Amino acid sequence: MKAIQVGLLGIGTVGSGTFAVLQRNQEEIRRRAGRGIEITMVADLDTARAKALVGEHVQVVGDARAVIANPDIEVVIELIGGYGIARTLVLEAIAAGKHVVTANKALLAVHGTEIFQAAADKGVMVAFEAAVAGGIPIIKALREGLTANRIQWIAGIINGTTNFILSEMRDKGLDFDAALKDAQRLGYAEADPTFDIEGVDAAHKATLMSAIAFGIPVQFDKAHVEGITQLAATDIKYAEQLGYRIKLLGFTKRREGNELTSSPAVRGVELRVHPTLVPAKRLIANVEGAMNAVVVNGDAVGTTLYYGKGAGAEPTASAVIADLVDVARLATSDPQHRVPHLAFQPGAMRDVSVLPMDEIVTSYYLRLTVADEAGVLARVATILADAGISVDALLQREADEVGGEGSTQTDLIILTHEAREGAMNGALTQLQALPTVLAPIVRIRKEELN
Amino acid sequence: MKAIQVGLLGIGTVGSGTFAVLQRNQEEIRRRAGRGIEITMVADLDTARAKALVGEHVQVVGDARAVIANPDIEVVIELIGGYGIARTLVLEAIAAGKHVVTANKALLAVHGTEIFQAAADKGVMVAFEAAVAGGIPIIKALREGLTANRIQWIAGIINGTTNFILSEMRDKGLDFDAALKDAQRLGYAEADPTFDIEGVDAAHKATLMSAIAFGIPVQFDKAHVEGITQLAATDIKYAEQLGYRIKLLGFTKRREGNELTSSPAVRGVELRVHPTLVPAKRLIANVEGAMNAVVVNGDAVGTTLYYGKGAGAEPTASAVIADLVDVARLATSDPQHRVPHLAFQPGAMRDVSVLPMDEIVTSYYLRLTVADEAGVLARVATILADAGISVDALLQREADEVGGEGSTQTDLIILTHEAREGAMNGALTQLQALPTVLAPIVRIRKEELN
Repeated sequence: MKAIQVGLLGIGTVGSGTFAVLQRNQEEIRRRAGRGIEITMVADLDTARAKALVGEHVQVVGDARAVIANPDIEVVIELIGGYGIARTLVLEAIAAGKHVVTANKALLAVHGTEIFQAAADKGVMVAFEAAVAGGIPIIKALREGLTANRIQWIAGIINGTTNFILSEMRDKGLDFDAALKDAQRLGYAEADPTFDIEGVDAAHKATLMSAIAFGIPVQFDKAHVEGITQLAATDIKYAEQLGYRIKLLGFTKRREGNELTSSPAVRGVELRVHPTLVPAKRLIANVEGAMNAVVVNGDAVGTTLYYGKGAGAEPTASAVIADLVDVARLATSDPQHRVPHLAFQPGAMRDVSVLPMDEIVTSYYLRLTVADEAGVLARVATILADAGISVDALLQREADEVGGEGSTQTDLIILTHEAREGAMNGALTQLQALPTVLAPIVRIRKEELN
Repeated sequence: MKAIQVGLLGIGTVGSGTFAVLQRNQEEIRRRAGRGIEITMVADLDTARAKALVGEHVQVVGDARAVIANPDIEVVIELIGGYGIARTLVLEAIAAGKHVVTANKALLAVHGTEIFQAAADKGVMVAFEAAVAGGIPIIKALREGLTANRIQWIAGIINGTTNFILSEMRDKGLDFDAALKDAQRLGYAEADPTFDIEGVDAAHKATLMSAIAFGIPVQFDKAHVEGITQLAATDIKYAEQLGYRIKLLGFTKRREGNELTSSPAVRGVELRVHPTLVPAKRLIANVEGAMNAVVVNGDAVGTTLYYGKGAGAEPTASAVIADLVDVARLATSDPQHRVPHLAFQPGAMRDVSVLPMDEIVTSYYLRLTVADEAGVLARVATILADAGISVDALLQREADEVGGEGSTQTDLIILTHEAREGAMNGALTQLQALPTVLAPIVRIRKEELN
């Protein structure tokens, strides 16, 4: 069978990794796919650099539309990134009847509904294994490996930059700013790290996993997005003493109505990214540095975990090429035999909403800076009890330990059982108003993940 | 599209789990697969029990051949197990043009070549996700998720019984026999646990992963198989002190010639199951109880890990049903679009041999019971050095600690760097012959897995 011809849009880090791995392992890949896979055309603004990377046998152009217009190209790899020109080019490639492989989580999390619909109308594939957790084949696991299951929840360390920073904070007792500087110096964080440290990148990926897991449209605009910039070394230390690690998790969960919700009829999907306490004994709590891991809980399979490199040229190329092999295998088959873009057949998607944060149910870590005097704990406990929130564990530091000898304030650390976030918000307002609570209360969500 | 009709051969634990999950999640599964999947016929020797399990709408027969002969049945699930009648029935189902889904690792590890050839000739699929690591979609990850990679090695905890026993030995300081009794009492080990504790079950699974990873025929007869029955609590304790855990690993590795081998031309595949020291900081070292995990190293993706339940009714059913969905999607497609049984196209398999154990390269843990006298260490070190084996770490116990006050013997624990097993065997013969070595030397292999 003739080799399938592929056009590459954007030859940066991942693009050149993809080109290199396809070359190096071409024989192995052909033995698996049953046909060759060749990048025969590359578009990049920097044509000189692109030519130097791919050599003289590959056509290099400055205009991506020349790739899309080439009738010999069957598959277009989009590695430009962002929502702008990438969206236009992906839609044009689909309109031209090309299959698309992309690593662009931002694009799909925001414009996925439009793009997948266009692809379905045209009968082409849009493959995006590289968009979530780099080289880990998590999209394949969710869409194909766990099809027997009602997925219950997914929790992922899906941003390497923030996991690296959190590992540094814990290992070296650093505060966020110092750890970020380390990460930038070592190349784990970009000069403008906003998308990573504010949780936006993780939320894009969580949005995609949520859609695939539950058969719902992508709803990035409804995701709760909270980064790690406010996290203090103190809380990492207290969490450790209580048997927990703090990780930035992308979390999504199916909710079917629950006695804790304001109304028993509340059904929907939780979709949230925030720092999270995780029991130290869980495997995912021990994922360190820039590594990624995703935990998936299904009703039949139970808890499964997928671990690997979430970024970098060759790990991401590994996912891009796996998609190319899938596309090469199925390019000539009729579309109904293919795996649906979002795991469920387009006609069988459900319009389930993402729940507002007041309706989510989780447990909490609270740190209160309180006056070191009698009765404080009783007042705090009463407010929580009145809100229907029960305390799971409590850590009270001696005032001297916290503020030095003669200090009149101390830290009160509380772990709660599960509660509705709306109830917790109400209780926090009351707690914050107590005259004996001397500083803004720190609240970090906690998931047991068992 | 009409529901695909499935016949089930053998409705034991996994069979009834498969039936139950297919019923419970039928709507979810249909939304993914694009068509219903129904078990409409069941064969089991105990027809009364089978009827009670599946209800009156499913036809129950005592003769598996009646299922194979039914023209409405497109897929046969084989859950009988073993090499005997299961082999005959699988071949007959293939001959009748049925697709086959099986959890039978023993059958495929031993007769895979014959079975896959028959399936290829007939243009049907034989799917076996459930044969390795239960609910973990590891076959899919290897065959489809990592197609870009030259797989370098795979290491797996792929037998839950032995991992449970090893966890008990470590947690409670038990010796093997006591831990086995615990496992049997708690239902983690069978009355006759031979296949598990002797490593045979793990070797079946490692054989299948090896074939898929390297594009070679199944070669179970060439696998080195060593169980955990000889393992002592002492060695688990010493390993721990040196920063290692002992796990029963199924291990397979590509070898391209290496300066450590007797001949630089040695190429082949290592395929071995044995107790193995693994650094305690690796995630896989922290996989406890009956859980399974597989680490896969590919040249592009680096190290990835897949974790979950390796056995049990519903986790295994999860894998069986994932295969059913794949088969349902591709049943009407032409065979060349399907994923090859062993990941590589049948015409592109390589006849690479499994290396004899003398040619493998690994590092070692040695425990020598030696006379507590001057010069012993020097003699031991000289023998190892003369064999070209270098010492990485050494732990010598005070004689009093080991044998009680006034003892004249002590334990000498050595960790070596990588060496050829043939060289190690030669050195061990010499070491054992030393008059100051007072008991059989314990040798456990060690893998860094980084």
